[in-house]
Amino acid sequence: MSETVVATRTFTEKLEAARDASITLAACNAALKNAALEAIALAVVDNADRIIPANQLDLANGRENGLSVGLQDRLRLDEKRLASLAEAVRLVATLVDPVGESVRGKTLPNGLQLSQVRVPFGVIGVIYEARPNVTIDIAALALKSGNAAVLRGGSAAENTNRVLVDLIQGALASVGLPRDAVQTVDEFGRDGARQLMQARGLVDVLIPRGSADLINTVVNESKVPVIETGAGVVHVFLDESADESWAVDIVQNSKVQRPSVCNALETLLVHEGSAARLLPAVLGELRASGVTIHADERTRAIFADAVPATEDDWSTEYMSLDLSVRVVDGLDQAIEHIRRYSTHHTESIITNDLGNAERFLAEVDSAVVMVNASTRFTDGGEFGFGAEVGISTQKLHARGPMGLSELTSTKWIVRGSGQVRP
Amino acid sequence: MSETVVATRTFTEKLEAARDASITLAACNAALKNAALEAIALAVVDNADRIIPANQLDLANGRENGLSVGLQDRLRLDEKRLASLAEAVRLVATLVDPVGESVRGKTLPNGLQLSQVRVPFGVIGVIYEARPNVTIDIAALALKSGNAAVLRGGSAAENTNRVLVDLIQGALASVGLPRDAVQTVDEFGRDGARQLMQARGLVDVLIPRGSADLINTVVNESKVPVIETGAGVVHVFLDESADESWAVDIVQNSKVQRPSVCNALETLLVHEGSAARLLPAVLGELRASGVTIHADERTRAIFADAVPATEDDWSTEYMSLDLSVRVVDGLDQAIEHIRRYSTHHTESIITNDLGNAERFLAEVDSAVVMVNASTRFTDGGEFGFGAEVGISTQKLHARGPMGLSELTSTKWIVRGSGQVRP
Repeated sequence: MSETVVATRTFTEKLEAARDASITLAACNAALKNAALEAIALAVVDNADRIIPANQLDLANGRENGLSVGLQDRLRLDEKRLASLAEAVRLVATLVDPVGESVRGKTLPNGLQLSQVRVPFGVIGVIYEARPNVTIDIAALALKSGNAAVLRGGSAAENTNRVLVDLIQGALASVGLPRDAVQTVDEFGRDGARQLMQARGLVDVLIPRGSADLINTVVNESKVPVIETGAGVVHVFLDESADESWAVDIVQNSKVQRPSVCNALETLLVHEGSAARLLPAVLGELRASGVTIHADERTRAIFADAVPATEDDWSTEYMSLDLSVRVVDGLDQAIEHIRRYSTHHTESIITNDLGNAERFLAEVDSAVVMVNASTRFTDGGEFGFGAEVGISTQKLHARGPMGLSELTSTKWIVRGSGQVRP
Repeated sequence: MSETVVATRTFTEKLEAARDASITLAACNAALKNAALEAIALAVVDNADRIIPANQLDLANGRENGLSVGLQDRLRLDEKRLASLAEAVRLVATLVDPVGESVRGKTLPNGLQLSQVRVPFGVIGVIYEARPNVTIDIAALALKSGNAAVLRGGSAAENTNRVLVDLIQGALASVGLPRDAVQTVDEFGRDGARQLMQARGLVDVLIPRGSADLINTVVNESKVPVIETGAGVVHVFLDESADESWAVDIVQNSKVQRPSVCNALETLLVHEGSAARLLPAVLGELRASGVTIHADERTRAIFADAVPATEDDWSTEYMSLDLSVRVVDGLDQAIEHIRRYSTHHTESIITNDLGNAERFLAEVDSAVVMVNASTRFTDGGEFGFGAEVGISTQKLHARGPMGLSELTSTKWIVRGSGQVRP
């Protein structure tokens, strides 16, 4: 099936080839990168007859190995999904190239001209699970930002990813770019992930995408710098002055619109002064949408149709139609609760009190803090980045939704005319 | 001697106290932080009679344990050095507070107002060796950027650092800030460093300062994100068209002005077309300053007063009056040499050829790339940052000289009026 003609290479040989390819990509203008993206989009749509059978094989293996229904759904590619993947690649082609952007600049008193410009990282490693769409997405984002990508996509999607990477490599070659700019290391199995984490000096940054377990493993074991795209134990706090219709709409949207994603609401905190006023409507609407309420005692005194919350519930990212609910004494206790249980992804306060809004924004230490808005807005697309690499919950390098510019580093350029330091 | 009244605390208790203090600092305005800096500066100068005897004790122990003369010099504090440390702290007080600075912002079509603002990291861990000046420097920089600092300064400076941290804590308390905002964990010995590297979730970023060995250990073992301040195998390339006086002055300045620092020149590459014209003057001047030339054959054919270069020399950071010199075929070979041996700190081309200058700037992948300037300019002070945390040779988060803003993260603030995602 495969058109690959390259003899079997060692892991290090593959990474060195990625490094060489990254040097070509770094010097590549946007027009050529966009031509490669267009070729990838075309290849994805035109080769459904190669992709879908490989995907069917992965799905059959998955069913045999007891892959959950949710993961099976993530794994599945059909013509419609392939078309929307191609559309996403074409969208990346329309984005501004971040490489070469001047971040800061000045002329020093001695005449030296300084400028800090964006440059690609070089080689990006990505470790993910059972999501063939990530293969296309991340290849497109890496390419546009001038980076080579080395992918470990996991055994569950191995056949699909092999075909996708082969198509991407063919598209790269068709415009004269090196095939090695996008590679999979799936043939090394679990050892591929382990070796990627050890490859300091050959891989510039490692991005894990997937379960909390996967991310924790990479964060703890990697010697390569990691960008952590973390879990979301996301909170909304209904303050004493919260508008009822905003409270109902924002909680409903945050929890129910797409419960399986990281920006979905997991814990609702309610000021004791507004609990009786707001909870019946807010929780009633959620129950009507099939949400199971895990509530503390004070909540259940107001809204009986709930199960008792356990200590574990406060730190659980359900990713399902479940919600933890707690009545708090006020803003201080809400902030304290968030400090203790949040994963510092997104938190929103619903309030009409300016002082409380500003305190919440200042004192809650999360990647995204909101006033009177749905937590579902924490998203690269919604933020206008045009694409999303993931949502960083770490503080180093990138925090919150990451777009193309978060896939770049910078370098300082100094232009002189013989200056020496006195 | 010590005024500390706190009962002995566990490592985790100390880090939790640092976390609590960091919350206070994050909300602290610049005026109060500057008052604390002034109190620290005063305390350093006024307490020479406590600091110097402790330092003498460390020096005596150092001599007994065979500490090198160079490290003994770094360890030594006298009244003059204390005065200049205090001056450096006062300089930090004059710098603009990075916290709260708006990095990006926009209003989305649905009316949501987004802004990305600088926030402190939280708790910064610093692991360093035998340099009590770092204790004061990093405390001042951390404080100004709203971060708590947990310091592991090493056994060689333990007595000095204990007094310095006690004075800093007293200064913090005198203006009403928490003493725990600056702490040493030296009492835990080597285990303190090990535990800092494991303290993911309690320490937000770890900065190693010191030898390549120390930095490599931290980079490889830390589970906490690290900012790597790396070694400098720094190159100058004399192109065919290099001006002779610029070549002589820039090489001399880059190598001789302060050979023990990371931005000092270590390897000189010379275009074969200019070697006969430039090397006699360039290397003659260096020899007159006592520099030992480690040269390849083509160099020694032109300039005999040199020892043969070994393969190891090309990757050696001498930090002394030694220089590796190689004649190359041209720009391509120069770039190839740099790609192979450089630590990606700073490289400079001396040329009058515009195309070659631009190629060098674009293709050399180092933190700082220069044309016609001394490599000694890679420095936070020279770049106008007012202070320097170190020079990052990694690509994540910060690259090149780091000032106060590199000690911050960001968060996104979203202000809405009931928006939900369609």
